[in-house]
Amino acid sequence: MQFHHHGYVSTDPRIQEAAGVGLDRPDELPDEVDVLIVGTGPAGMIAAAQLAQFPGITTRIVERRAGRLAIGQADGIQARSVETFQAFGFADRITAEAYRITEMAFWKPDAAEPANIVRAARAVDDPAGISEFPHLIVNQARVLDSFAEVMANAPTRMRPDFGYEFRGLDVVQGAEHPVAVTLARTEGPLAGEERIVRAKYVLGADGARSAVRASIGCTLAGDQALHAWGVMDALAVTDFPDIRTKCAIQSHSGGNILLIPREGGHLFRMYVDLGEVAADDAGAVRSTSLEQIIARANEILHPYTLDVRNVAWHSVYEVGHRLTDRFDDVLPEERGTRTPRVFIAGDACHTHSAKAGQGMNVSMQDGFNLAWKLGAVLEGRSPERLLDTYSAERQVVAKDLIDFDKEWSTLMATRPEDLADPSELEEFYTRTAEFPAGFMTQYTPSIIIGGDEHQASATGFPIGKRFTSARVSRVADTNPVHLGHHHRADGRWRVYAFADAPAAGEASALAAWAEWFAGDPASPLLLHTPADGDPDAVFDVKVVYQQPHEDVAIERVPRVFLPNVGPFGLVDYEKVYAALPGEDVFEDRGISRAGAIVVVRPDQYVAAVLPLAATDELAAFFRGVLLPA
Amino acid sequence: MQFHHHGYVSTDPRIQEAAGVGLDRPDELPDEVDVLIVGTGPAGMIAAAQLAQFPGITTRIVERRAGRLAIGQADGIQARSVETFQAFGFADRITAEAYRITEMAFWKPDAAEPANIVRAARAVDDPAGISEFPHLIVNQARVLDSFAEVMANAPTRMRPDFGYEFRGLDVVQGAEHPVAVTLARTEGPLAGEERIVRAKYVLGADGARSAVRASIGCTLAGDQALHAWGVMDALAVTDFPDIRTKCAIQSHSGGNILLIPREGGHLFRMYVDLGEVAADDAGAVRSTSLEQIIARANEILHPYTLDVRNVAWHSVYEVGHRLTDRFDDVLPEERGTRTPRVFIAGDACHTHSAKAGQGMNVSMQDGFNLAWKLGAVLEGRSPERLLDTYSAERQVVAKDLIDFDKEWSTLMATRPEDLADPSELEEFYTRTAEFPAGFMTQYTPSIIIGGDEHQASATGFPIGKRFTSARVSRVADTNPVHLGHHHRADGRWRVYAFADAPAAGEASALAAWAEWFAGDPASPLLLHTPADGDPDAVFDVKVVYQQPHEDVAIERVPRVFLPNVGPFGLVDYEKVYAALPGEDVFEDRGISRAGAIVVVRPDQYVAAVLPLAATDELAAFFRGVLLPA
Repeated sequence: MQFHHHGYVSTDPRIQEAAGVGLDRPDELPDEVDVLIVGTGPAGMIAAAQLAQFPGITTRIVERRAGRLAIGQADGIQARSVETFQAFGFADRITAEAYRITEMAFWKPDAAEPANIVRAARAVDDPAGISEFPHLIVNQARVLDSFAEVMANAPTRMRPDFGYEFRGLDVVQGAEHPVAVTLARTEGPLAGEERIVRAKYVLGADGARSAVRASIGCTLAGDQALHAWGVMDALAVTDFPDIRTKCAIQSHSGGNILLIPREGGHLFRMYVDLGEVAADDAGAVRSTSLEQIIARANEILHPYTLDVRNVAWHSVYEVGHRLTDRFDDVLPEERGTRTPRVFIAGDACHTHSAKAGQGMNVSMQDGFNLAWKLGAVLEGRSPERLLDTYSAERQVVAKDLIDFDKEWSTLMATRPEDLADPSELEEFYTRTAEFPAGFMTQYTPSIIIGGDEHQASATGFPIGKRFTSARVSRVADTNPVHLGHHHRADGRWRVYAFADAPAAGEASALAAWAEWFAGDPASPLLLHTPADGDPDAVFDVKVVYQQPHEDVAIERVPRVFLPNVGPFGLVDYEKVYAALPGEDVFEDRGISRAGAIVVVRPDQYVAAVLPLAATDELAAFFRGVLLPA
Repeated sequence: MQFHHHGYVSTDPRIQEAAGVGLDRPDELPDEVDVLIVGTGPAGMIAAAQLAQFPGITTRIVERRAGRLAIGQADGIQARSVETFQAFGFADRITAEAYRITEMAFWKPDAAEPANIVRAARAVDDPAGISEFPHLIVNQARVLDSFAEVMANAPTRMRPDFGYEFRGLDVVQGAEHPVAVTLARTEGPLAGEERIVRAKYVLGADGARSAVRASIGCTLAGDQALHAWGVMDALAVTDFPDIRTKCAIQSHSGGNILLIPREGGHLFRMYVDLGEVAADDAGAVRSTSLEQIIARANEILHPYTLDVRNVAWHSVYEVGHRLTDRFDDVLPEERGTRTPRVFIAGDACHTHSAKAGQGMNVSMQDGFNLAWKLGAVLEGRSPERLLDTYSAERQVVAKDLIDFDKEWSTLMATRPEDLADPSELEEFYTRTAEFPAGFMTQYTPSIIIGGDEHQASATGFPIGKRFTSARVSRVADTNPVHLGHHHRADGRWRVYAFADAPAAGEASALAAWAEWFAGDPASPLLLHTPADGDPDAVFDVKVVYQQPHEDVAIERVPRVFLPNVGPFGLVDYEKVYAALPGEDVFEDRGISRAGAIVVVRPDQYVAAVLPLAATDELAAFFRGVLLPA
């Protein structure tokens, strides 16, 4: 955490100084905004928290409810999401209060006595150590609280505007605020009253029944058949021994349960499968009572019993596998002729079962993917065509998610005796672990994803996948730190210069690169960094040496890695790193000993891998996505 | 973190439900309190944060200042303090914003050109891995903020009472509130007005010039000569390469600097030695200006220069090595005839140099040591004689501190050419690392420290030293966790039952012990636990099995380790542990394979180590410190 460089901060350094539109932020929703977000779920809130970091951008987020979410909804947090929370500064704090999944247990009918269930297998949750971040369970409400805190502590001092419902929108191309959104108050003396808010961009994060989606002519396509679930957040006394372990439980009767222990050591969530819903059910399944859900759970758990003492929340819901074909308002035939003004994200774009614990996670990545792009365009740093990449990148991810979830939920619903192999379920779980952990996403080439011609320079940073952090030594203070954890959600591009073999101060490819980057007229630093800002305002440029930190003389490191920042012109010492003995990032990430440049997007995805000498390619890459300053 | 067991908690689980005196806490300082603490420094605030956990106890903490500390004062946080913060729930949060010391550098005059300093050595800060917690630097203000947050979130909803100065006290033995304290308002329309607050106990944590100390007839004895320091918290640009590393810098001219990098990546504290103060100085040294301190620093750093851009705080102060002979109001000749009513802690008891970074840390351990004892006595769980152990335990620690600091500061002030061995300083630093890390404290036998007859049952838990945590597997959810990190500052005694070899459910010494502890009329559980409370209200009893967690069938574990708690009678699953493969606590802590009982005090110190069969000794130990319920 870096602070004090604008003068001494006596109180919580997580609270940034108010700036720009945060200096005089009106409590009331204004008539004109840069970005209007509809819905305070995970997709909307992460987008709002990201946009809140830009002092020049007015973002408002409206919500039909009168206040914060209190109970219910999603609870699975994959490691990729915790990595994302790290960029927003609350990974540790939410980890401390969450339940952590380290193993999953699989219960099946006892072969000897099929009326009883027995533990058939255990699977370690992340046997390959895909991430240094944990797999968590914590209520969506606390995730939203965390984003709300980030927003409130941001320079723009953002807070959600509760009590507004989306009624419709019109796009008038060419206007400065082209999207006219009709909102209606849902509470208070003005309830029902409509008003228009004009926005440059609108994000519909308003859930599976999204009205924003409807307003841009998108529909969810997919399964006709829906699947019904009874779900409860319960406190109970039970003799079932794995009540604090994530379990997939399949009973002789065909019923099955997904058991998710929850934060706090006592609560658990139980998804009780109520089966496919007949086409003519007409919502009848939703009248399933809590007592019926509990009774069904007891049947499945036999010979164990569940004495439910308190239920915080329960619901019966039906869900299918459905997906939109686009995530914005540009029709296929229009693509390339105009850029989007209205976007949708999260459940508005993709719905599926809760079984893989993916919904909240994929939704947050939707919002994160879009928000930095909106920030870059609105700040005038990037061309509008950057916004085309949102739908292109995220629709594919949603498609993969639907396919994965179909396979997983079909497997879980299959009677054990019908499986090709009795251990098919747990094997699938272990084999595909990278997907539900959130790390299978790999974006394809575009203006923000380069080609793989030079992937060999750093094989451990696959282009298009998220930057896999590794530990290094920070030279100035000899602290072992995770290189990737210094990546904040601040809209900046990261440029990691992995040095070639010579030591700091010696003639080297790294030194030549640093000289070019710091001073060549063609350098992205000179082309795209505003003259009146800090030198690291657009590019956060770091170097990693091959030597241990004792052998890196910081006074001989090129100055581009030690920029002077802030009103006092203080040196930022947190951009110079060294390989850790015994934990060499060059070895662990397959980085060429001739050095490499790794470019990482503001949302943590690897955009380019280049040799140190490929300065023309590096400059060309950034000319594609950044405008001249 | 455990919660939800009294019903669903939707918001921050760190905020406990208000209870007892917190339900209707008056904003105004009342006329009668249980405990009155004078001074909101580290010793006072930790004591207040601890006492705030007891809903039945009215504690108030008064402070002369009008509000929170903003700048200056102590900044060194030893690992033992971070371990203590863990018990109060904010170790991770303060670590995230602190500077972490991993190495110390030693700079000396260049032999070839003595006018220049050169780096002579580096020393790794904790080469032996004494603690899993880091060695930190963070402003005292943030430590106090953290304790204030703990207090405010506690059942008693405690807040400091700012703007009251201590004027004097009278003790009337035998009264229900024997200590009449005269306070005066320091601000507002009533400034100067005196009032009396009557307390059962008073803690003077009012600093080196403690008025509470004077009121009980204690004096600081020690050095006549004082040592002067110029100190500044500065933002600067410099070519000194180790500006972000802790350094001891000795110059040719004899001047020396202790450089402490600070939180946030830019700020540093510099202690510039101004030498011994002549007896007839009469405070003249205090007129040393900031400019003089900066000039002196530049001389010492030669050939490097320090361009100071901003100074958040600076001071010149004189300090000697001084100590009181007792920490309470009981004169030596009275000891045993009455128990104390007034205590002093922190700088009120011991003053010394800042060079070893010890002051705040030892002060916090003073406050922690006392506060749980006050809580136990005021709640009627322990006899008043428990309070005698405070002065007895802490005076010795203070004496050791003064001795250590004398040696260290003498060494640091010695000209390199006068040292017996040129590397004497760094060798002393490395050799004695356990002391400044805070882990050398070892209390001697008393009613709360047992004898060492059975130390062989667990050699890695030395009786009288703080419980050294180790990782184990929590059986119910298969999470690897640090056993000691589950120890909260809640006033409870921890009883760790390390099992003998048989598995859970088999006949074993552990099973026999559990049966005795759960049901024998002589068991401490039955004797000292109130009938109307949770079974773990007084004793937090945990078991650690030798088997890996897969081989511990939780349904066969004795019920005393799975108590039913809270209004719903839910099972607490976080008391059953298993050894981790490859990281076996039995091996790492020298625990007998025949099992052992380790008793840990509410302030994390090991009180007793006993074989499983030594039930009589265990019962006798607790009869000494706990009253019948």
